Amino acid sequence: MRNCIVAQSGGPTVAINASLAGIIAANEDNNYFDTIYGSINGVTGILKDKLLDLTETGKKIPGFVEKLKVTPAMYLGSCRYKLPKIGDDNAVYNKIFSYFEEKEIDTFFYIGGNDSMDTVLKLSDYAKEIGSPVKVIGIPKTIDNDLCGTDHTPGFGSAAKYVATSILEIAHDTFIYPVKSVTIVEVMGRDAGWLTAASALARNEYSTAPQLIYLPERAFDIDEFVEDVKKQLEVNNSVVVAVSEGIRDKDGEYISASGAATDNFGHKQLSGAGKALEYVIAEKLGVKVRSVEINILQRCASHLASLTDLNESMEQGKKALNLSQDGESGVMVTLKRTVNAPYTVETGCLDIHKIANEVKSVPLSMINERGNDVTDEMLEYLRPLIIGNPWVDYKEGLPAYLNVSHLVPGTKRIVPSTE
Amino acid sequence: MRNCIVAQSGGPTVAINASLAGIIAANEDNNYFDTIYGSINGVTGILKDKLLDLTETGKKIPGFVEKLKVTPAMYLGSCRYKLPKIGDDNAVYNKIFSYFEEKEIDTFFYIGGNDSMDTVLKLSDYAKEIGSPVKVIGIPKTIDNDLCGTDHTPGFGSAAKYVATSILEIAHDTFIYPVKSVTIVEVMGRDAGWLTAASALARNEYSTAPQLIYLPERAFDIDEFVEDVKKQLEVNNSVVVAVSEGIRDKDGEYISASGAATDNFGHKQLSGAGKALEYVIAEKLGVKVRSVEINILQRCASHLASLTDLNESMEQGKKALNLSQDGESGVMVTLKRTVNAPYTVETGCLDIHKIANEVKSVPLSMINERGNDVTDEMLEYLRPLIIGNPWVDYKEGLPAYLNVSHLVPGTKRIVPSTE
Repeated sequence: MRNCIVAQSGGPTVAINASLAGIIAANEDNNYFDTIYGSINGVTGILKDKLLDLTETGKKIPGFVEKLKVTPAMYLGSCRYKLPKIGDDNAVYNKIFSYFEEKEIDTFFYIGGNDSMDTVLKLSDYAKEIGSPVKVIGIPKTIDNDLCGTDHTPGFGSAAKYVATSILEIAHDTFIYPVKSVTIVEVMGRDAGWLTAASALARNEYSTAPQLIYLPERAFDIDEFVEDVKKQLEVNNSVVVAVSEGIRDKDGEYISASGAATDNFGHKQLSGAGKALEYVIAEKLGVKVRSVEINILQRCASHLASLTDLNESMEQGKKALNLSQDGESGVMVTLKRTVNAPYTVETGCLDIHKIANEVKSVPLSMINERGNDVTDEMLEYLRPLIIGNPWVDYKEGLPAYLNVSHLVPGTKRIVPSTE
Repeated sequence: MRNCIVAQSGGPTVAINASLAGIIAANEDNNYFDTIYGSINGVTGILKDKLLDLTETGKKIPGFVEKLKVTPAMYLGSCRYKLPKIGDDNAVYNKIFSYFEEKEIDTFFYIGGNDSMDTVLKLSDYAKEIGSPVKVIGIPKTIDNDLCGTDHTPGFGSAAKYVATSILEIAHDTFIYPVKSVTIVEVMGRDAGWLTAASALARNEYSTAPQLIYLPERAFDIDEFVEDVKKQLEVNNSVVVAVSEGIRDKDGEYISASGAATDNFGHKQLSGAGKALEYVIAEKLGVKVRSVEINILQRCASHLASLTDLNESMEQGKKALNLSQDGESGVMVTLKRTVNAPYTVETGCLDIHKIANEVKSVPLSMINERGNDVTDEMLEYLRPLIIGNPWVDYKEGLPAYLNVSHLVPGTKRIVPSTE
């Protein structure tokens, strides 16, 4: 028997299931693995013996792979579990590798972000240390696009499409009144501004929104911001500002409300950058102002995914299986852009030691001098990533995603131990 | 010459342009009007001589009607202008009716919500008073669904679909961690809970989210709410709560943060019901909690419109033109549900005096006894309204909506005076 375990970890994206679908689809073609197991809630599913037999599931559900490709968040659930340093507590490593042996595991695939790649690094190092034949392969994902060693990460293109579409639709909303107004849209990205930068894709022949874009890679200056908005209000009725949740001032302090605020129930108030800037504009400029936090929808709105993103994520899942066949371990699947126009990418892999725990920030060449917009280089980088709409089935007016009752307690549909 | 003016007013919906498209499409069929003018920014476009020749525009832009049907917000812009009481200031009425005469206007169509229907009432009353032959016809729209005399309003079905889809996608997002968590989703609707109720449509065979729904029609009790959430947390890992922005306590006070709150820039903080309840849960139950304000996206996300809604909105535009042909004035187009399964509606009309300035609240029979959910009656009412997806053209990965540069100053594409 030659089996594998796939697990998912970190925050959700709409493409993380597409990579899982890619592994399953590749195996349907070449039958490299007898059984593909899904570990429920990341690596903790291995520690708690919670596996789902995905080979079996795939046979039972018609169109499983195609539906999985467009189902948001994680079909296998997630975890925020960080493995101890090798040597600090080897009991957990022993448990994992005994379990691998018991289930006749040939490869462990981990789809996730930076923390998950840290797990890939540790498990593959440990395997080498104990001479285990188990291969460990990482497949990236993150809407933040902040993983090194790859052109862009699965999930980013779809989130970028959601952000740009939302900004375009918000622009239409703001055009309707002939009065001065400011709309501040807060976009996810604590440390990297890639997703906020994608708001620039919303601009077209009739709309310059967002007129201002602020990323966390540049120190944020409140006075300059007020000046920027004021200037834009001179030429536009409605000004739309895209701002990363992670913007910080020159001292590294987050731009957010954190003071001794209390609401009418006596509870302390906290709010993000968008809300904080809303109040700045209201006070300093006295114009109509509103803030919109796109919030978690930007990472789970599969109905508006980028087909390019989902296809590439699937390809990276297939590549992972091929890497396993080739005997690779301790690597992360990567994507290399070979040509920008026409957009062409190829999958590859990189030693996990060169990737884990590094953050890919937006280079300063992609931010304008004033720090309130992105450059054409950024737009050229972003444009191909949001192209195409996936086929999503609708049932009674709503997207018909895959049933994920195995993640919901009470429904008891988890296969507790698959032999 | 027999011309007409169409104007749009109030807050945006994704269906308000479909009603305009319906008027244009009906006129393409029967050529009742020589020219259809669009008044820019509601009735104020008449006062400021800002008309767009829509008959001409329709000829110039290929596929104009189909594109207009799916373009969000208002193609003609909006206004919040309320006409004075007849008798208080007849100068403005004289100006409007002189303009109608000058432009050989046969009918004025006003697409809007409650305030717009007040304008329809006043203008039609005034026409009668002065013996003007100009007909005035209202076409409803509002995502709030709070207009009387009609089964439901254009724009509501699409907003309902957006809310339900978002809740479903948020549910997927919340399922991934096997830890207790509460997500509070704040939905628009200051006085009526229809749109918040639509969140119930997200429930399916694997998800009971939202487990709790609170509408403004019932007094909100903080202690009962905490008790409700606590109970739900006993049987669910992740609890999703849909709450209307307009919920109030038994004294009629909005549930929101309003105290002497200041952020770290010294600005006063205000926040909505969702945020306020987030802090209540954090304090009282100490579980992971997050609030999501769907915000303006629920009223402008045309990419996720309900085809049923857009088709009906178009039909109501067509009906308005037919009513004009039949010599009707001082009426609003209505929709009557003749059968629920299979869902069948027919258009009609109602005397505007029976509609304007009345609010249609959710009847108590559609809310459960505890006031934390909706009944099956509500679900049966809602289900047909979100069915079907319109065809939206995409260009470079983004929805290709109609160019609305005539609303954006600086582009100078407004036809200042069309003869």
